[in-house]
Amino acid sequence: MLTDPRLATRTRHMQSNAIREILKVVSKPGMISLAGGIPAPESFPTERMDEIFGTVMAKYGAQALQYDATEGFEPLRVALSDYLAQQSVQASAEEILIFSGSQSVLDTVAKMVISPGDIIVTEEPTYLGALSAFAPYEPRYRTVSTDEEGMIPEALEEVLKTEAVKLIYLTPTFQNPTGYTLSLARRRAIGQLLQTYNCLLLEDDPYSALRYRGHALPPVWSFAPEQVIYSSTLSKVFAPGLRIGFCVAPEWLRPWLVVAKQGVDLHTSTLNQALAVEYLTGGHLPEQLATIIELYRPRQEALLQALTQHFPQDFIWSRPEGGMFVWVIGPEGLDAEAVYWSSVEKGTAFVPGKYFFAQPETGLSTMRLNFTMVDESTLDHAVQVIAEAIQEATAETA
Amino acid sequence: MLTDPRLATRTRHMQSNAIREILKVVSKPGMISLAGGIPAPESFPTERMDEIFGTVMAKYGAQALQYDATEGFEPLRVALSDYLAQQSVQASAEEILIFSGSQSVLDTVAKMVISPGDIIVTEEPTYLGALSAFAPYEPRYRTVSTDEEGMIPEALEEVLKTEAVKLIYLTPTFQNPTGYTLSLARRRAIGQLLQTYNCLLLEDDPYSALRYRGHALPPVWSFAPEQVIYSSTLSKVFAPGLRIGFCVAPEWLRPWLVVAKQGVDLHTSTLNQALAVEYLTGGHLPEQLATIIELYRPRQEALLQALTQHFPQDFIWSRPEGGMFVWVIGPEGLDAEAVYWSSVEKGTAFVPGKYFFAQPETGLSTMRLNFTMVDESTLDHAVQVIAEAIQEATAETA
Repeated sequence: MLTDPRLATRTRHMQSNAIREILKVVSKPGMISLAGGIPAPESFPTERMDEIFGTVMAKYGAQALQYDATEGFEPLRVALSDYLAQQSVQASAEEILIFSGSQSVLDTVAKMVISPGDIIVTEEPTYLGALSAFAPYEPRYRTVSTDEEGMIPEALEEVLKTEAVKLIYLTPTFQNPTGYTLSLARRRAIGQLLQTYNCLLLEDDPYSALRYRGHALPPVWSFAPEQVIYSSTLSKVFAPGLRIGFCVAPEWLRPWLVVAKQGVDLHTSTLNQALAVEYLTGGHLPEQLATIIELYRPRQEALLQALTQHFPQDFIWSRPEGGMFVWVIGPEGLDAEAVYWSSVEKGTAFVPGKYFFAQPETGLSTMRLNFTMVDESTLDHAVQVIAEAIQEATAETA
Repeated sequence: MLTDPRLATRTRHMQSNAIREILKVVSKPGMISLAGGIPAPESFPTERMDEIFGTVMAKYGAQALQYDATEGFEPLRVALSDYLAQQSVQASAEEILIFSGSQSVLDTVAKMVISPGDIIVTEEPTYLGALSAFAPYEPRYRTVSTDEEGMIPEALEEVLKTEAVKLIYLTPTFQNPTGYTLSLARRRAIGQLLQTYNCLLLEDDPYSALRYRGHALPPVWSFAPEQVIYSSTLSKVFAPGLRIGFCVAPEWLRPWLVVAKQGVDLHTSTLNQALAVEYLTGGHLPEQLATIIELYRPRQEALLQALTQHFPQDFIWSRPEGGMFVWVIGPEGLDAEAVYWSSVEKGTAFVPGKYFFAQPETGLSTMRLNFTMVDESTLDHAVQVIAEAIQEATAETA
């Protein structure tokens, strides 16, 4: 592959995120979109912001507008230490580093550990944003089979046995795109493998707070904290427009992440970090999170019910206990992209699942449906439209 | 040099910014610091923030809290187009990309154009933050001589003639650390060289709005817009804690910068971009900038006057018409680091200039003095202390 001589050679591995390109097409007025991966605007604490802002300026004043430490705003590291303790992540403030969204954690970790040609293990399908963070560092990928209980440890061990794996990337809870959650037994087994093979895991956990049913599971981090970078974000429980992500990293890696971040953006917005402190410690989070869950739970139920009602018998789909996505697998031979175009013509969009697979010609019959942006009755209508599009696509094939 | 096998090979080029390390030492209570490079907190529009925030929430509501385009918040790109037009940068909103501080521009440009071993030309001395942004992409450096009128075009041409230069990095106005400003004739000459050798320049312009005397000069960009990435920031005219930087880039490079930024942090904080829109368009900037200049101008005058009064005759220093720094060159043989330690003992800090030189054992007799954080009478006192430390260091040498 030729590279423009004005550019770095690493650009040959980089391309625009296909989902964002698709979203451009579906942004026309009137389109019902199950394609996005973003929170509903009505889930944001918009009404609380004046109060939060007022408290921040009263408490921190000019400090909230000034440069700050690369590691993160100290009061936020302390507040996150308390927040994480409720989620089986017992980390001191010092062990927590703040980043400009969890995307920035993915970029920085890859920058620090991946030399060109190093192997990263991912789920298949996986989160595309992670691939665009990793791409400039020129890794090679190995994918590991995944089922409804997440990555299969035996399949992972096959890879670890035969290859020098530099990093594993996993979203164990309510994964994007599948909604799958790694079972407790597999969390334990993977933690054990990390220790046995002394391999580093980047555990991406943006969705676990969005739980509508069932019981929380401890992160893989809790089974092997020396081998895991635990990464999360306030984008789904506060507001993505603030770009606050964070990670808990092993001691040997932490100074390197700080050096790298210093070169990338000096530090994350002090003002937004101060707003996050007030949101976490001022009693806002528990109330707002309850509101968010009460918004999404019925939407997810409506989507699952509509699928049962309208989709053909030979389709299956995930039934996650939380998160933002449901994953649909059509019968072999289904061309989900043909369904997509037909459905978009009828005014309803989703994402053909093949975009989440590294291998070409894989996942052709799959679809990712998002349920956070649309209300219950619209979801029912949207699923009917997609079902019609499926019928047409199937009729054409037959 | 050995690299920890858990890390990427690129980490061998990376190290913590020495100035930030020095700043840790000088943060003890009571220390007078001329070492920093940050704006005075009293220069921030702290009192205006409630009004600005209120307007933003009223105007944009949940949109200010939502994900947004990688390219930047559209109203901010429009507002910056107007702002830049006042500074001889005629760029449409579409040509302007928003980044998370200008540090993030430096990182992203280097990521997109520098392959390992590619040559970057810098001034000597140069801004350390740029070197930490560039380091992970493993460039080689060539330095070009600089005098009171900035980089010497003839010296630059010598390098361009003999080497394949991938990128030139310049801070043409009130440079950090020297305060030097590239003369108009040299701006024109360098613009001409860029075209002749079809070479790319990264023009870093954080300080030009902080002008206390004399007339504004057009950026090098205006002489060769196809060969220049013009980069600037709102950190010095609004607030650094918001992390709003931006650049104007040639058309061929822009899509690549967007793809890279998507992988690094998806986009810059929507809320902070919306605050910046209101600051720029709501009539705040002109009043606040006048306040900032009236704060810094007398400080800089006090520093220059104190140097004349207290420093030995064989020292020379820059007399910039703006910015945040004055550069002092002591007589050959002076060990400015010895002066530093002696001065710190007496309660006054600055930065020994050698840290800004790529070559070891260079710039040993130089010092960078910042004047933004300290009032006039304290500046006079601080210069007296440093003068005493010089006397002691010189006596010991003699």
